[in-house]
Amino acid sequence: MSLKEYLAAQTKLVERALDRWAPAEDTPPQTIHRAMRYSLFAGGKRLRPILCMEAARSVSAAVEGVENVACVLEMIHTYSLIHDDLPALDNDDLRRGRPTCHKVFGEAMAILAGDALLTLAFEVLAKTDAIDDARRARLAAELASASGTAGGMIGGQVNDLEGEGKTPDPVLLESIHRAKTGALLRASLRMGAIYAGATPEQYDALSRFGEHIGLAFQIVDDVLDVERSSEELGKTAGKDAAQRKITFPAVYGLEASHRMAERERLRAQDALDGLGARAARLRELADLIVYRTA
Amino acid sequence: MSLKEYLAAQTKLVERALDRWAPAEDTPPQTIHRAMRYSLFAGGKRLRPILCMEAARSVSAAVEGVENVACVLEMIHTYSLIHDDLPALDNDDLRRGRPTCHKVFGEAMAILAGDALLTLAFEVLAKTDAIDDARRARLAAELASASGTAGGMIGGQVNDLEGEGKTPDPVLLESIHRAKTGALLRASLRMGAIYAGATPEQYDALSRFGEHIGLAFQIVDDVLDVERSSEELGKTAGKDAAQRKITFPAVYGLEASHRMAERERLRAQDALDGLGARAARLRELADLIVYRTA
Repeated sequence: MSLKEYLAAQTKLVERALDRWAPAEDTPPQTIHRAMRYSLFAGGKRLRPILCMEAARSVSAAVEGVENVACVLEMIHTYSLIHDDLPALDNDDLRRGRPTCHKVFGEAMAILAGDALLTLAFEVLAKTDAIDDARRARLAAELASASGTAGGMIGGQVNDLEGEGKTPDPVLLESIHRAKTGALLRASLRMGAIYAGATPEQYDALSRFGEHIGLAFQIVDDVLDVERSSEELGKTAGKDAAQRKITFPAVYGLEASHRMAERERLRAQDALDGLGARAARLRELADLIVYRTA
Repeated sequence: MSLKEYLAAQTKLVERALDRWAPAEDTPPQTIHRAMRYSLFAGGKRLRPILCMEAARSVSAAVEGVENVACVLEMIHTYSLIHDDLPALDNDDLRRGRPTCHKVFGEAMAILAGDALLTLAFEVLAKTDAIDDARRARLAAELASASGTAGGMIGGQVNDLEGEGKTPDPVLLESIHRAKTGALLRASLRMGAIYAGATPEQYDALSRFGEHIGLAFQIVDDVLDVERSSEELGKTAGKDAAQRKITFPAVYGLEASHRMAERERLRAQDALDGLGARAARLRELADLIVYRTA
């Protein structure tokens, strides 16, 4: 199967799981269910759930049902985008090529839709019969830590907001991005490992892979914000500079940022050495993250 | 022990658990941890965790550690107040006698602090060693359902927002309040029951008690908003009428609302008949809810 066919099949698997767990649009209260689905099905790359599923497969062939766990990462990611786009935070009108959730449904509904997706993620982990209770607890703990304040996604958003306008500084930059995007990307790999019953060595290898591609992902994101147009990205380009965000290009320049992304890609792939041929798709996903153009 | 002494001791137990689980103010990122603690320790009545602990005790004497589970109800309640008070929702400046979270920390931080408390609640359920993994999953499922969109707290907030300015209608009124405040109050009782290993009969009795006091609580809340001053309530009084909210006094008038609250109090206490003397404190709590003045 080509990478393109593989990605299409994986995306379908994730979206079927999301569709199964997200309340139907005709279930009351309809407005919020429409808002949740509007943002959930806006054509994202589904990178986090795909990484989660592939991490599981790199450990074990018996991972049917993993999409039920993987899809909660997309719920968390989507809630964070909805809240991040609000006027009080990044104030963005465009996301994945469409008006942001609050532009369509209003701010109140966007705040509640984000809350609801965050709640739904933990509801799915509590209720899916794809896992036993011991793994359920480990998965929920990992997801909560990666989404929270101390070294997690929310903490990264706080640092990002408070960093606006400050002098670009490598230490601050790393602390922002390790938390803001890195924590949830690493959790995607770890949750796949937990699902599949990984050994401690496999879990560590996948964690390290997640850390390096997390960093690579963010470097490339920062670079694309400079080099590409809003139309190409499906979101407002050039915002980082306008908001004086602390980014990799701002700290190191564009050329060095490209080199750093490439270095993280190689480190990520090195981390997979012990997993052998089963990790081939993860290697391809690392290439995809670094060589993407949007 | 008098009711007053009992409440003081219970409040202390809850607040010690909150203090144990909430990240310290000097842990980075400090701002959000300060915002979370500002709202968590604003002197709330701790009604939900106290009901949870007392429900557990009405079933079993061996409930050490229940405060670790009970305190997550206060985290959810507090996050919902922070988000509800935002300018885009109820736009309130005063809560528990102090400026609301966004007035002190700004809207962006208030949104993130709410998200963080919601995440923390599920983190505590995933990590506390006060419970085994089977009960952990049931507790998380109950909390998520009660907090979510379909018949849960967020769904109630949506109906409440969309009801503003509509003709006061008993069916709409009940659907709003059963979800908005009733679901989490009922969950408080149910989670106590689950914690203590209740039989199905005990669980049902505590659920019914929770439904009736949930309704009573909301009726009294609506009545107090009309009858009391902002100073007495510690939050802005008279807001329901100003925002043309659908409330019990608006649908039934004040006198009938008082009678309905009293009827729900009695029904709640009747539901406890099968639990005997162990449920004495729960009966007192029902009295407290209906006869409170703030």
